[in-house]
Amino acid sequence: MPAIANPSLLILHHHHHLHLHLRPRRFATGLLPQTLLSLLSSSIRAPTLRPHSTSSSAQTQPLSTDNARTGRSGSISSPPVQPDIAQKIDINPPKGTRDFPPEDMRLRNWLFNNFKELYCFEDRGNRRVALRPELTPSLARLVIQKGKSLPLPLKWFAVGQCWRYERMTRGRRREHYQWNMDIIGVPDVTAEAELISSIVTFFKRIGITASDVGFKVSSRKVLQEVLRGYSVPDHLFGRVCVIIDKMEKIPIDDIKKELRSAELSEEVIEELLQVLSVKSLEKLEEKLGTVGEALVDLKQLFSLAEKYGYADWIQFDASVVRGLAYYTGIVFEGFDREGKLRAICGGGRYDHLLSTFGGDDIPACGFGFGDAVIVELLKEKGLLPELSPQVENIVCSLDQDLRGAAAAVARILRQRGQSVDLVLENKPLKWVFKRAARINAQRLILVGSAEWQKGMVGVKILTSGEQYEVKVDELE
Amino acid sequence: MPAIANPSLLILHHHHHLHLHLRPRRFATGLLPQTLLSLLSSSIRAPTLRPHSTSSSAQTQPLSTDNARTGRSGSISSPPVQPDIAQKIDINPPKGTRDFPPEDMRLRNWLFNNFKELYCFEDRGNRRVALRPELTPSLARLVIQKGKSLPLPLKWFAVGQCWRYERMTRGRRREHYQWNMDIIGVPDVTAEAELISSIVTFFKRIGITASDVGFKVSSRKVLQEVLRGYSVPDHLFGRVCVIIDKMEKIPIDDIKKELRSAELSEEVIEELLQVLSVKSLEKLEEKLGTVGEALVDLKQLFSLAEKYGYADWIQFDASVVRGLAYYTGIVFEGFDREGKLRAICGGGRYDHLLSTFGGDDIPACGFGFGDAVIVELLKEKGLLPELSPQVENIVCSLDQDLRGAAAAVARILRQRGQSVDLVLENKPLKWVFKRAARINAQRLILVGSAEWQKGMVGVKILTSGEQYEVKVDELE
Repeated sequence: MPAIANPSLLILHHHHHLHLHLRPRRFATGLLPQTLLSLLSSSIRAPTLRPHSTSSSAQTQPLSTDNARTGRSGSISSPPVQPDIAQKIDINPPKGTRDFPPEDMRLRNWLFNNFKELYCFEDRGNRRVALRPELTPSLARLVIQKGKSLPLPLKWFAVGQCWRYERMTRGRRREHYQWNMDIIGVPDVTAEAELISSIVTFFKRIGITASDVGFKVSSRKVLQEVLRGYSVPDHLFGRVCVIIDKMEKIPIDDIKKELRSAELSEEVIEELLQVLSVKSLEKLEEKLGTVGEALVDLKQLFSLAEKYGYADWIQFDASVVRGLAYYTGIVFEGFDREGKLRAICGGGRYDHLLSTFGGDDIPACGFGFGDAVIVELLKEKGLLPELSPQVENIVCSLDQDLRGAAAAVARILRQRGQSVDLVLENKPLKWVFKRAARINAQRLILVGSAEWQKGMVGVKILTSGEQYEVKVDELE
Repeated sequence: MPAIANPSLLILHHHHHLHLHLRPRRFATGLLPQTLLSLLSSSIRAPTLRPHSTSSSAQTQPLSTDNARTGRSGSISSPPVQPDIAQKIDINPPKGTRDFPPEDMRLRNWLFNNFKELYCFEDRGNRRVALRPELTPSLARLVIQKGKSLPLPLKWFAVGQCWRYERMTRGRRREHYQWNMDIIGVPDVTAEAELISSIVTFFKRIGITASDVGFKVSSRKVLQEVLRGYSVPDHLFGRVCVIIDKMEKIPIDDIKKELRSAELSEEVIEELLQVLSVKSLEKLEEKLGTVGEALVDLKQLFSLAEKYGYADWIQFDASVVRGLAYYTGIVFEGFDREGKLRAICGGGRYDHLLSTFGGDDIPACGFGFGDAVIVELLKEKGLLPELSPQVENIVCSLDQDLRGAAAAVARILRQRGQSVDLVLENKPLKWVFKRAARINAQRLILVGSAEWQKGMVGVKILTSGEQYEVKVDELE
């Protein structure tokens, strides 16, 4: 797994909508600050020009009303449009503009709220840029740029800083480091299995066990197959995922209301909610039958988990959809079994991300793992390691004239790969011993005049108290 | 040297002027975006209210002229102020405001141009923030925050990203990584000697020698002693440093002109330029005498360099002043001896930085070392290492049904600390060998059905071609 790094600044392009989709568990169709300007101006015209004024016009919330006040010509004296003088009026908005009826306005408000979490600004070259909120879109851009010169599959990781302007809670900061691992070029579920294996290996290494942490696993295809079963059009899929992703945050009645406004029938909604409550593959099989890709993928993943030896870490949970727009297949998230913290990590398959950057699609999957929640968990479990300073040698001259000699000794030790804290001032020996204890030095090297004349130094092993003289050349 | 990390975002406070001083070789008195607003509005009044209108008013360049156009009341019809209707007018600007005569305006323009290099913006909480252009002010803030709980001296290092919006040239990017090392709490030159030693050790480790790179060393105190010798007031010191720092960039006549506008007499200017051209400590001693701190510090540093064994790397050069406002003593910069590149690194003593953050002063010194110029130098010298991928094992199943078995083998090897590239798809052996060669795998582990039934796998040592079977438990 080679490490990679990407720039911290993203340029906000029209076709790069995915930059604006924020972990965790939030997503939407891609809209952009630049785009917003046109959306806003089009929303303004709705109240006056629509002949059948509905509550929708009351719901539009123009953020700037300059146009509405002064009219298109800028003249103040032009007569107001009178909607009751009925003529045959085209009820469609002008080409390229959009109205925002309440259901769309809610989505837009939700979306704008999410924009707020981006650190975005205009640079001195008038580019709209943002501090990256996550690493995957930067990776996708890089892969497309490198193109066919990259021998697939890629197995890359990165640890990078990400920024989000959000309300700070436990394990949620405005700046954090995120570990990402991605496998690009493997369509099989073996890739997801390998990724989860890496996380489990990491957990084990830091002392976290399967009784502390688990992975909820599902597939976006579960939802897709249910919707297709009821002939719900594919373009509604993304929107439904957004709504579903909020299940743990808002009351179930509000979820239902939103699903209804996405034109889902009561029957579909009921079926959907039933499926989402499924917590075992057996039950899922009863619901979906054995033929769909969702079940085949999930069964393979659970079978591989047995072989990898992490079957006790993972469980099927149909309610997991993850918050990023680009996931297409298996999705998973790590959670603490006590339920005190937000998701520890999350990931999934994103087979169509690359084409949104203008490249060919390449099957891909990956995960993101922040440094904040895991530290909270380690604290919670009493597993935070004590990492005291570790310096092998402290070197000190006994005489101001021997400072240079002490420096020479430090240089020799460093050349031999040893770490050295060189005492840079004239300090009493008592101070030197105190400092040696604080930095957990193993040896004290004393450069005294009599020894130095013989080409020797004094050595004190601080753990045992053993003391001896040694030739500088023989210091190891 | 413990590693540290700081946030990437700086809040721009009034008293944190130092955030705005940019490496390399630029500095100024500390002014801030917020402050600028008041400066600008005060500059606007100059043309109309000053009775003795000079060329200075023509030189003022208000960036916003709204007030000037509409007058204070906003009324368009109020009569213009007539400067020739002479009354006794206070020729001082109103309290708290400032005029900008040409010499000050030039400084302000220069300063504003430098502001442009900051990535600064307002966050959603209306804080003026900037992406850090360098790391030292963040370190200073942290040290003050930790206060007396920190046992001095501190010897800390950091590698962090820094951002500057500047014209991109060779070795100059808008985002770079910077290695910083600082020693806080040591007033003696032993600290500077130790820092330079660290850089030399690093250079040697990557193959750079004293014939490739040198350090120009001086002390800000040299300049200070010359100015004091001519009774030039101390407050002019910073401004003179700014001008001097431009010596290699603009013609000497312009330097002189600027020094004159800083109220230095011809005599002082000539003396200053003579001193700045001094390239040896012997000559400096002739100029300054033996008693000043500048010479004592520098002599001690060169003596320590002998003992450390890097005397051939350093040379005295009085023209080095470095571009940051906060340096107070020894300053140094690493340069390539062929003169093709800009400074490789730079640093110095900054004994008064902490008090600008409201803390007590603590003696301190440090350096910054960017990742861009050094890579250019390594390229130039043919010293860029070939760093090919290095994976110990490639593990592959010979049969789709044995994928899980291959995963189990990978897990076992990883638990034993080995790196493994697991083949995740069904690929012909030819493909596997090609990939093994590309990633420089040392061993190929083949999981075949007959061997697996015996609890064994096939091993091929790829360097020697040696082949054998081994029990999975005995894989090392």
